[in-house]
Amino acid sequence: MYEVNAPPAGVAAALPVDERFMTLALEQAARGLGRTAPNPPVGCVIVQGNELVGRGFHPRAGEPHAEVFALRDAGERARGGTAYVTLEPCSHHGRTPPCADALIAAGVRRVVVAALDPNPLVAGRGVQRLRDAGIEVTVGVLESEAVRQQAGFRSLIVRGRPWVVAKYAMTLDGKVAAPREGNGVVSGLKARALAMRWRDELDAIAVGSGTLELDDPALTTRGVPGGRDPRPVVFDRRAASDPRARAWRDGAVLVTAPDADAAAHEAAGITVQRAGSLPDALSGLAGLGLGSVLLEGGPTLLSAFFAQGLVDEVRVFLSPKLLGAGLSPVTGPARPMHAAQALRDVTVETLGPDVLITGLLHDIPRV
Amino acid sequence: MYEVNAPPAGVAAALPVDERFMTLALEQAARGLGRTAPNPPVGCVIVQGNELVGRGFHPRAGEPHAEVFALRDAGERARGGTAYVTLEPCSHHGRTPPCADALIAAGVRRVVVAALDPNPLVAGRGVQRLRDAGIEVTVGVLESEAVRQQAGFRSLIVRGRPWVVAKYAMTLDGKVAAPREGNGVVSGLKARALAMRWRDELDAIAVGSGTLELDDPALTTRGVPGGRDPRPVVFDRRAASDPRARAWRDGAVLVTAPDADAAAHEAAGITVQRAGSLPDALSGLAGLGLGSVLLEGGPTLLSAFFAQGLVDEVRVFLSPKLLGAGLSPVTGPARPMHAAQALRDVTVETLGPDVLITGLLHDIPRV
Repeated sequence: MYEVNAPPAGVAAALPVDERFMTLALEQAARGLGRTAPNPPVGCVIVQGNELVGRGFHPRAGEPHAEVFALRDAGERARGGTAYVTLEPCSHHGRTPPCADALIAAGVRRVVVAALDPNPLVAGRGVQRLRDAGIEVTVGVLESEAVRQQAGFRSLIVRGRPWVVAKYAMTLDGKVAAPREGNGVVSGLKARALAMRWRDELDAIAVGSGTLELDDPALTTRGVPGGRDPRPVVFDRRAASDPRARAWRDGAVLVTAPDADAAAHEAAGITVQRAGSLPDALSGLAGLGLGSVLLEGGPTLLSAFFAQGLVDEVRVFLSPKLLGAGLSPVTGPARPMHAAQALRDVTVETLGPDVLITGLLHDIPRV
Repeated sequence: MYEVNAPPAGVAAALPVDERFMTLALEQAARGLGRTAPNPPVGCVIVQGNELVGRGFHPRAGEPHAEVFALRDAGERARGGTAYVTLEPCSHHGRTPPCADALIAAGVRRVVVAALDPNPLVAGRGVQRLRDAGIEVTVGVLESEAVRQQAGFRSLIVRGRPWVVAKYAMTLDGKVAAPREGNGVVSGLKARALAMRWRDELDAIAVGSGTLELDDPALTTRGVPGGRDPRPVVFDRRAASDPRARAWRDGAVLVTAPDADAAAHEAAGITVQRAGSLPDALSGLAGLGLGSVLLEGGPTLLSAFFAQGLVDEVRVFLSPKLLGAGLSPVTGPARPMHAAQALRDVTVETLGPDVLITGLLHDIPRV
């Protein structure tokens, strides 16, 4: 059930909510995915009756918020209308003035919010500010979808570490690669295209030094119109990887041990992040403003993250073929089958010959 | 397209085929699955206009064929009707007289056949016999479904070995068991119930000596109304397994090396099959009249079958959880990813929390 203001006596009950407009707002928000960190991706549409009169999204940190773009787009037609926003409008002065005030000033009659903002500076205060101004507010419309879209921002602001998404492609006998082969192609075209979209949408892409040596991957986004590259992060405790590897493009981050000799990497202009543990490393990445990390490393990196409970979400492409000998995506920790970690919010989808299964190992932080 | 007789001059074209009646015939046939070897499961329905007037199936070797039961059921109403049969009616005298003759004698006007009989004694002769008697014959209605249902019979009669179905349940990180743990429960209830139905439908169930020692499995069919148990087959090259294990019930088969000392098993009344290789072992099982084998063994047995190209079909339950360290379903042979064996006729289905993916590694023999 949605949370709405109780209508004052003598006033008709709340207008019905049209989820399709929130879907449009989520589509707007998605345009900012991978570009807004440390801010959330947010979308907003303004509606008069059943007519869309304005839309906008937050394009990147430092730029105006979604509401401002949508209000600009609607102009005078915002007055008396309904705003659908994927995240609670802010109530505090950050780099931009509070969006709640902008909505009030524009004369919006009603605001429909997908999810409350977990930022302790907001966390319900935005909604309260709107209600105090006499605006009808509905909260919780397509909340799950919005929360999932905002996972990186929510993880960053609530947990102080990025949302970690492990992605791998596996055969039906559980192999991600042949022994010593490196990155053979496992999935079909549709699956690989979707994986490229994820690179476009997440803030960073992480691999271990083993993958760097074996594959020398570019870690770029390819074949996505208007796509941008995620920030490459290489976990290399000994800083022994070749500083001329393709992953070391602008913005690349080397995560290494506190005492490793990373002089060559520093000389090459690579950002060096020193950490004594994986949790420390993730805090460091959060400090760089990275809200989400796509873990595309091999079994060593993935197993280390998984064993320490640091994988938040998995996205697995299953390819209907059998390999034989090969590498397992995860090799530890050891525990009995009944203690295996079950995924939540599981989705199953076929993509050409492949099957995509996704799910969460942790809940996305809410308010 | 279906193969039909060309209508003689002055006669109307073939009546339209109603696939729903073939579906009913396939359902009839399914009642014999796991019970008819070395004969095929066959179903037959007799139709007058749009009315079902008779049905039958082949219950087990030595009993009459499906057509006979259906004709008995229809009685005089068979005359002028249409028979839907899942397999070409036989034209030869086996343990029973030819079914083609029975259909002719009953005055059936038309016969619709799902698939031709690959038995070299039939292989089109049954259809020819019907046509020679002036009966209209259509071949190929729901042929793929019928061929799949008859995989065991077809494999036995054409290849001289059983159809081998590998079944396993795997986590999303590609593990079938924790190390040294034996058979922990991987799948949910729906998946396990379906796996029990497969035990009811296939002629034999095979495991290796490792599984016998670790789990002492009963290898019985449980929770299937009217279910019967498959014949247990244990691959144990050294004949070192305990002859008191639960798998050694009536009809159990020990497959062992030509020179193994199996005196204790023989003394316990166990059928001992000696074979110098897996292909020889499968020929031996075919000699026992077993048309289909459900391979439920551990990685050692499955890898041996897979490495030698002896797995015909795989049925994999994927459970959306991550284990960590554990056993891979298949551990060999070694080859590059691009040489992985692709499955054909892939199906994907969700069953409660699990995903079932099936497919074929070999084609089912046709005529």
